[in-house]
Amino acid sequence: MYELGVVYRNIRRADSDLAAGLGAFGTATVHEAMGRTGLLKPYMRPIYAGAQASGTAVTVLLHPGDNWMLHVVAEQIRPGDIVVAAVTADCTDGYFGDLLATSFKARGARGLVIDAGVRDVRVLTEMKFPVWSKSICAKGTVKATLGSVNIPVVCAGALVTPGDVIVADDDGVVVVPATWAQKTLEAASAREANEGEKRAKLTAGVLGLDMYNMREPLQKAGLKYID
Amino acid sequence: MYELGVVYRNIRRADSDLAAGLGAFGTATVHEAMGRTGLLKPYMRPIYAGAQASGTAVTVLLHPGDNWMLHVVAEQIRPGDIVVAAVTADCTDGYFGDLLATSFKARGARGLVIDAGVRDVRVLTEMKFPVWSKSICAKGTVKATLGSVNIPVVCAGALVTPGDVIVADDDGVVVVPATWAQKTLEAASAREANEGEKRAKLTAGVLGLDMYNMREPLQKAGLKYID
Amino acid sequence: MYELGVVYRNIRRADSDLAAGLGAFGTATVHEAMGRTGLLKPYMRPIYAGAQASGTAVTVLLHPGDNWMLHVVAEQIRPGDIVVAAVTADCTDGYFGDLLATSFKARGARGLVIDAGVRDVRVLTEMKFPVWSKSICAKGTVKATLGSVNIPVVCAGALVTPGDVIVADDDGVVVVPATWAQKTLEAASAREANEGEKRAKLTAGVLGLDMYNMREPLQKAGLKYID
Amino acid sequence: MYELGVVYRNIRRADSDLAAGLGAFGTATVHEAMGRTGLLKPYMRPIYAGAQASGTAVTVLLHPGDNWMLHVVAEQIRPGDIVVAAVTADCTDGYFGDLLATSFKARGARGLVIDAGVRDVRVLTEMKFPVWSKSICAKGTVKATLGSVNIPVVCAGALVTPGDVIVADDDGVVVVPATWAQKTLEAASAREANEGEKRAKLTAGVLGLDMYNMREPLQKAGLKYID
Amino acid sequence: MYELGVVYRNIRRADSDLAAGLGAFGTATVHEAMGRTGLLKPYMRPIYAGAQASGTAVTVLLHPGDNWMLHVVAEQIRPGDIVVAAVTADCTDGYFGDLLATSFKARGARGLVIDAGVRDVRVLTEMKFPVWSKSICAKGTVKATLGSVNIPVVCAGALVTPGDVIVADDDGVVVVPATWAQKTLEAASAREANEGEKRAKLTAGVLGLDMYNMREPLQKAGLKYID
Amino acid sequence: MYELGVVYRNIRRADSDLAAGLGAFGTATVHEAMGRTGLLKPYMRPIYAGAQASGTAVTVLLHPGDNWMLHVVAEQIRPGDIVVAAVTADCTDGYFGDLLATSFKARGARGLVIDAGVRDVRVLTEMKFPVWSKSICAKGTVKATLGSVNIPVVCAGALVTPGDVIVADDDGVVVVPATWAQKTLEAASAREANEGEKRAKLTAGVLGLDMYNMREPLQKAGLKYID
Repeated sequence: MYELGVVYRNIRRADSDLAAGLGAFGTATVHEAMGRTGLLKPYMRPIYAGAQASGTAVTVLLHPGDNWMLHVVAEQIRPGDIVVAAVTADCTDGYFGDLLATSFKARGARGLVIDAGVRDVRVLTEMKFPVWSKSICAKGTVKATLGSVNIPVVCAGALVTPGDVIVADDDGVVVVPATWAQKTLEAASAREANEGEKRAKLTAGVLGLDMYNMREPLQKAGLKYID
Repeated sequence: MYELGVVYRNIRRADSDLAAGLGAFGTATVHEAMGRTGLLKPYMRPIYAGAQASGTAVTVLLHPGDNWMLHVVAEQIRPGDIVVAAVTADCTDGYFGDLLATSFKARGARGLVIDAGVRDVRVLTEMKFPVWSKSICAKGTVKATLGSVNIPVVCAGALVTPGDVIVADDDGVVVVPATWAQKTLEAASAREANEGEKRAKLTAGVLGLDMYNMREPLQKAGLKYID
Repeated sequence: MYELGVVYRNIRRADSDLAAGLGAFGTATVHEAMGRTGLLKPYMRPIYAGAQASGTAVTVLLHPGDNWMLHVVAEQIRPGDIVVAAVTADCTDGYFGDLLATSFKARGARGLVIDAGVRDVRVLTEMKFPVWSKSICAKGTVKATLGSVNIPVVCAGALVTPGDVIVADDDGVVVVPATWAQKTLEAASAREANEGEKRAKLTAGVLGLDMYNMREPLQKAGLKYID
Repeated sequence: MYELGVVYRNIRRADSDLAAGLGAFGTATVHEAMGRTGLLKPYMRPIYAGAQASGTAVTVLLHPGDNWMLHVVAEQIRPGDIVVAAVTADCTDGYFGDLLATSFKARGARGLVIDAGVRDVRVLTEMKFPVWSKSICAKGTVKATLGSVNIPVVCAGALVTPGDVIVADDDGVVVVPATWAQKTLEAASAREANEGEKRAKLTAGVLGLDMYNMREPLQKAGLKYID
Repeated sequence: MYELGVVYRNIRRADSDLAAGLGAFGTATVHEAMGRTGLLKPYMRPIYAGAQASGTAVTVLLHPGDNWMLHVVAEQIRPGDIVVAAVTADCTDGYFGDLLATSFKARGARGLVIDAGVRDVRVLTEMKFPVWSKSICAKGTVKATLGSVNIPVVCAGALVTPGDVIVADDDGVVVVPATWAQKTLEAASAREANEGEKRAKLTAGVLGLDMYNMREPLQKAGLKYID
Repeated sequence: MYELGVVYRNIRRADSDLAAGLGAFGTATVHEAMGRTGLLKPYMRPIYAGAQASGTAVTVLLHPGDNWMLHVVAEQIRPGDIVVAAVTADCTDGYFGDLLATSFKARGARGLVIDAGVRDVRVLTEMKFPVWSKSICAKGTVKATLGSVNIPVVCAGALVTPGDVIVADDDGVVVVPATWAQKTLEAASAREANEGEKRAKLTAGVLGLDMYNMREPLQKAGLKYID
């Protein structure tokens, strides 16, 4: 299903302001704004608490136990990108460590999302280079087989097309197709409006039952209170 | 097996002093004091290191991908309660975020134990609102189907009856039936007596083998030392 | 497959300087220096971020839900040792807590590697006693069945012979057979040479593609660039 | 949470006709008739294809790696019972083999539901003694620690009270509280009415869309057809 | 990431002869012919041994615990199709049973591939309606939320576009993009040529080492034989 | 930890009569006779019901996604051997199919035990070539990296030394060290004595409680019967 052995050099990236704007909302709001779709599987976890990133996707397809293409993708990174790495079969090996992070950072990458493992996490944490991965594992990889760069990939259950917006934080990773970025930003903004007001009410002890007018629909659905 | 669509408003809560007393011992001691039963499955993890809570259970039964009843249970919370949320099928969605946490906190909840996922964990951590959950996931939920509030539920493999004492910390979550709280507290106290003395001896290099008089039973069991 | 009910008191430990030297390189480098073997499964995780230890293995074989032999192994610990605990079947119980840690520490242990669960992790973290485990679980254990001490054991998928060098950090745990320690140290040293130089180049924006001369082999393998 | 070391000899069993009647409907229909509750987790699988059983529950609580109480529960079996075995912690050991099956069968048991492992599955299959279990495993168990018989237990995520109706087949296992058995049977009957008629229509090519009048609600929900 | 609430009625199906031709080779050969890509995750298993199917994909996107769209997709099935069902979050519920199978079969469906659970497997097996699923589970679903039909979906880690060829058997499920079907068929044919001859040689005791001329490359790679 | 790139041609195989004798007892009895050790993890399952094999181990160490060494090990097979394949990291790929099975069978192999995946299971089943594996998966492998043949390996959690006896059936796989084979056979024989007599008693309704004289120890342990 994948085209192998190719590197697409020219991809159409989503607007960087849109990526930044979506990043400010965080994954929970953004994925709601897309109709509750676009999330990668929840096994994708940040390597340190508080990790946050948003940017445009450059993608790479890897083979199990082989990180050769991570060196190839490095050259395609532009400032503001997030590298999204998929693997052709389940693998927990540590594909990525501090040297590659140094290189990615120098190229302007904002982070890495990889459906496999990483290592040197103590150094990556000190460098504040955010990574979302399936595992942490010291096991290294070989450099023997060609994958591809900047083809559409399935990463942790989600389709990522080069140039899509990636938003990632403590709650996970969400992908926003480039063509959806503008309307998703608007939907997210609408969703967040009055959040402060709502929080103030709830802090004051107002119940969601009343604030969201749920009592009537609950009664209609048949909810019974028993004393 | 579950009665659906009901909210029990009056439950008999365990004494709050008992809940506080048991909380002071922590989950490891409390579950030992109950004959090594009462623990929820170890996949239930706190969302931040150092989380600690004890209180009386108000329970809620949820459906997969539907958090409507969390708004219903909010109204039933009294100061000192911990909400225990079960789901009718496995689900990792993020049922609970910062707005609900604001509401629960305003009602006096001491924490949440949920056999599913939560989101906004960075904010929850800043709020110091402790949650024990199966997963962390940005995916939100709908509000469409009735569950129940304050019925007995099976949460992460343990039966929790409304009013039971919940003790939770870094090591997991334990449930103490309300009628067992007093004797469990006594058993826990007895267990902890001389802990300081034991720690001092072990620090000084005394072996558990000698302190607990294990050499004879080990020999009887047939242990052989080979030089 | 295991000899049960025996304690070997005299084992040949790898040289402590070798253990220290290997520890300085970390798990990723050490396991690469052994041909990418020797790692325990990646489900073995430190109980706190930043945990690091190296030392010589004393081994213990446990039964599910039974930690009796941890008291037996305590007596065999010498300063600089790391206890490696295997279990005869999968188990997530909390075999080890703060009292045993106090005892192990008093005997000079540098840490614990256990293919099961531990508890009291908040206290263990405060004590800075590093543990790598499969789970964290409040559930305690009984003291009823004999295992063995200082026999070769399979721990998390790796064979550990008493006296082997153990290196453990945030990236996992690696075992180096005592007879391989010297040559592994040399291979690790060779591997790390010029690391600083490489990092400087990568920081300056040099690509791994060029630094490692990968362009030609990639082209030979058939990689195509598409504009 | 569990009372340990007790055997309740007198339990109130659901009517055997109700158990037989519910068994005729199968797990899918029965659990629907209870509002889609009562199912054990789907990891519970029959040891051979086509296994089917229904009966009244006698329960037993076991400890990990210890099957002593299976001998105790054997004495409490009456013809038409199904033994439901829970364990106080996760365990995949083979608690049950052909000798115990011979004994259970001689006592009139219709099957076994166990949240752990079994062995001798080839012989059990030849004997046509149906078992639903979490695993198949040759590993045997000891006989050392007391559990209980005929107390309420949580088995594979469901609360089972002695005397409840158990229905099990290729699709899983469902528990019907004794007090719900009559109304569940009626609800199941109502559900199944016209099944033959429906099947005939669908075989003839009628669509569920039309047979269930779904076109209007789908349109209302906003479904769009695009040519 | 998914367009919700739409049904595409006109899709471009791969040629049915190509689907039949690819089906004759089986999943192992077909996925090799595509460069070892295109496979769904190995947790997708047939509900009975010996299940085999090939055909053109009609796709459906479902929500967790909701099978409404399976009735919608039924209308879009043409003879020779295989329904491929994806879910927006992990779910093991039984979405599909004997009534839907009767309907799908009447429409000409060759099978179902679903990244969730099915039920009534005994009847499905008797009907010889092949299904590949993640789980078998009696738990039913509601009919409440719109998904989509015939949009590209990610199913068990693979991107499936409506009209693609699906090949499924005991070894798993593979998807062949419609535009790749012809060349994949040719590559598969080339791969299989001389299979009979090879099998005859191997049966006669010829080693793969000799038949594939591996001795020299193995020696070059450094393999050493020790007597 | 593994010696790479070597093939040991001369190994000391356990006596073939011992292997046959142990095989007759089956895995459950054999592992009990070794003190309940020697079992591989229960995720190792036969590819068809009723599979049975016993023989002497020839071992092979593989890399993830690479089956080159399976061709190398084929040459080392002697009649009566079972190939035991370990992998240096978790992998579910299909390493082995019908051509290799044809070759192994021609060399006299009795079966394969592999801590990874296999494919062509329909044909393997027809050939009656028994395989115990972690997964079934169509995904093929490359032939690029050297492992080793006939070194001690850890397979599914158990240490297997070349020449050890392997016994495998529906209940799993057990390894008996060559030096333990004779005494294990004797212990197994002793264990099985009177089995027929026991079965007859149990069939007649005698309880294990009485046959094994458990009533007194149960009473001593404190078991209480409640009417």
